[in-house]
Amino acid sequence: MKLGDGVEAAIHCTTMLAGLQGGAVMPASALAEYHGVSASYLVKHLKQLVAAGVFVSIPGPAGGYRLGRAPQDITLLDIVLAVEGDAPAFRCREIRQRGPDAPDAFAFPNPCGIKLAMLRAEEAYRAALAETRISSLIRDYSETGDPRDIARGCRFVEANRRP
Amino acid sequence: MKLGDGVEAAIHCTTMLAGLQGGAVMPASALAEYHGVSASYLVKHLKQLVAAGVFVSIPGPAGGYRLGRAPQDITLLDIVLAVEGDAPAFRCREIRQRGPDAPDAFAFPNPCGIKLAMLRAEEAYRAALAETRISSLIRDYSETGDPRDIARGCRFVEANRRP
Ligand code: FES
Ligand code: FES
Repeated sequence: MKLGDGVEAAIHCTTMLAGLQGGAVMPASALAEYHGVSASYLVKHLKQLVAAGVFVSIPGPAGGYRLGRAPQDITLLDIVLAVEGDAPAFRCREIRQRGPDAPDAFAFPNPCGIKLAMLRAEEAYRAALAETRISSLIRDYSETGDPRDIARGCRFVEANRRP
Repeated sequence: MKLGDGVEAAIHCTTMLAGLQGGAVMPASALAEYHGVSASYLVKHLKQLVAAGVFVSIPGPAGGYRLGRAPQDITLLDIVLAVEGDAPAFRCREIRQRGPDAPDAFAFPNPCGIKLAMLRAEEAYRAALAETRISSLIRDYSETGDPRDIARGCRFVEANRRP
């Protein structure tokens, strides 16, 4: 099982944008610089997050990104689905209907039990992701993160916020 | 999030091999034919299942594959890990340690909370996969599958078992 590379950056960007106050935004270039990724790579994922309503994009030279809703209303599931799409990880190609003497499709009125079990497990994964809110990640970080690292993040947000 | 194509075939092959009695085996060519996949494609995954102890491979012209243990001792997790490997789906590249003025690594004695939350969700996924045993998939199928499809599978196993 694999998640795309973009998920890590997307979640970290979300926690960083949560530090902005009063309608301020941050440009993609700053988000990319802080996380050590290329801006063109990151913009693709920022756009996905905008499309999903997790971020809002303000155009123009003073533009940038901010959260589309409060940190307690954004879960890890929102971000993962925005970046990865919501297709199931398990892909059933109905191989039960292939092979010699395969009966007609009417012999398969019920979904394959293997598929159902695989999708049930994905539901458990999604439910766990949906339980973690960005607000709680930030609270944990503020309590357990290194004070120098926390200060570094705050300085960076202050220096790169618009306006 | 994506699982490789091989998982579907691997699970279906496992349920088919569970139909063999008394040390009989089935050749890869028969497993491939029944599931409508190429034998060379399937062999790669059969080998992974042998390496994980889920299957046993008997070499030689009368050889083939059988289960390495009882169907109640094989879970979906065993098969998914055999085919996909056990690396986490979420890949943390420690992007928190990048960027301007990044403090030395000693500022990060604790794992990133985002990484921990993502891996926690994967644990929920794995726990759900571990709850489903091949024996229970077979029982459900024998109760809810189309009798013609069940008969087709039995005929195929009888015709292709060795010895
Ligand atoms: S036919 Fe796709 S999982 Fe069974
Ligand atoms: S540094 Fe990798 S998830 Fe935070």
